[in-house]
Amino acid sequence: MIKAIVPFKVVNPKSRLSTLLSPEERAELARLMLRDITATLTAAGVEVELLTTQPFEWDSATVVVSEKELNPALNDYLSATDNTVLIVMADVPLLTEKNVRDMIDSPADIVICPGRGGGTNVQLIRRPDRYHVDYYGASFMDHVRIAEDNGLTYEVFDSFNVSSDIDEAGDLVELYIHGKGEAAKYLRSIATLDTSKGRVKVVKEESNLRAVRIPGKTVG
Amino acid sequence: MIKAIVPFKVVNPKSRLSTLLSPEERAELARLMLRDITATLTAAGVEVELLTTQPFEWDSATVVVSEKELNPALNDYLSATDNTVLIVMADVPLLTEKNVRDMIDSPADIVICPGRGGGTNVQLIRRPDRYHVDYYGASFMDHVRIAEDNGLTYEVFDSFNVSSDIDEAGDLVELYIHGKGEAAKYLRSIATLDTSKGRVKVVKEESNLRAVRIPGKTVG
Repeated sequence: MIKAIVPFKVVNPKSRLSTLLSPEERAELARLMLRDITATLTAAGVEVELLTTQPFEWDSATVVVSEKELNPALNDYLSATDNTVLIVMADVPLLTEKNVRDMIDSPADIVICPGRGGGTNVQLIRRPDRYHVDYYGASFMDHVRIAEDNGLTYEVFDSFNVSSDIDEAGDLVELYIHGKGEAAKYLRSIATLDTSKGRVKVVKEESNLRAVRIPGKTVG
Repeated sequence: MIKAIVPFKVVNPKSRLSTLLSPEERAELARLMLRDITATLTAAGVEVELLTTQPFEWDSATVVVSEKELNPALNDYLSATDNTVLIVMADVPLLTEKNVRDMIDSPADIVICPGRGGGTNVQLIRRPDRYHVDYYGASFMDHVRIAEDNGLTYEVFDSFNVSSDIDEAGDLVELYIHGKGEAAKYLRSIATLDTSKGRVKVVKEESNLRAVRIPGKTVG
């Protein structure tokens, strides 16, 4: 059985969404994106493990705790296995079961799914013995180079769903419009879509904004 | 033979790239993106027509001139045909021959390729008699609704390549990193990639910036 490792930040997740969402809303959205992703992976027949920096309870996955930074923690994980590994970022809630199955069907040694802005959102690694990861910055280019340097074949996986990572407030529009899971439902319950001018964006409804600005006032 | 209609702005194209590129650079980039797209469509066996608001010469395509706005001009075009039509935006230079063939292979009445931020970048329309387009704003949602209202089946086409429209300076990173055609080559010749902090972005090289700011100084 193919295993997926999903790095997940337990404390103060998705901090760059703070321009729009409160800490509680960010935590809930992160939790629901993780739930959507683990459900999708499980449905595709993949066993899910979470990588965290501290203990964390999650009903449908084993939790691997490492105090190391993301890259060394993942490279430790790769060093310890001979099996095919999927590395899935926790902020790609549009990922579908078909996406996962298509990656698994690829004959390439490494399947690299680009994120927007030069990132890497999902990788399928059939040769963990001859590969390592290097996230941050233009990681897509680094991962292509690492595959080539190690004589591995790679496929660039062409998917809008997988490329859509929810990192900044501007990214929420993809989840709002295209999402089918719990995270999208939650987002639509706390925010709305502004299509009035220029690029479409997700905004807080006026009543919601007031509630955030002057907590308690509506009660007293 | 399936026809593609590609709306193209002849005068002052891609004005939202002016934060990074000069008018001449924007015109050249727009021309090369159009060249890449028409070459891809032609290679996939599609006949290309350009839709412009004024006469324009293009060696590999018929030019259809309409003084109307985008939506009525395209809807006039759809009304005048019974054949399958592809509508392809002129700023999706990552579009591949495989993407076009996969769209054509879809059994759906309408294939809708989302752009980022709720847009629609490419559509394949098998029933122009029962469909109309409505670009601008969250056009993806509008197009889904129009298909449903007219009892047509639709497929949402899941492609990073097709979703990557080059509209603002921040979008250029996708072309710079993933592009394989003439537009990407040109962009790499006039700009560079800044991976120093936060989101990766395309910037002008210092020498280039100076050349733009004080033209002539390097000569005298």
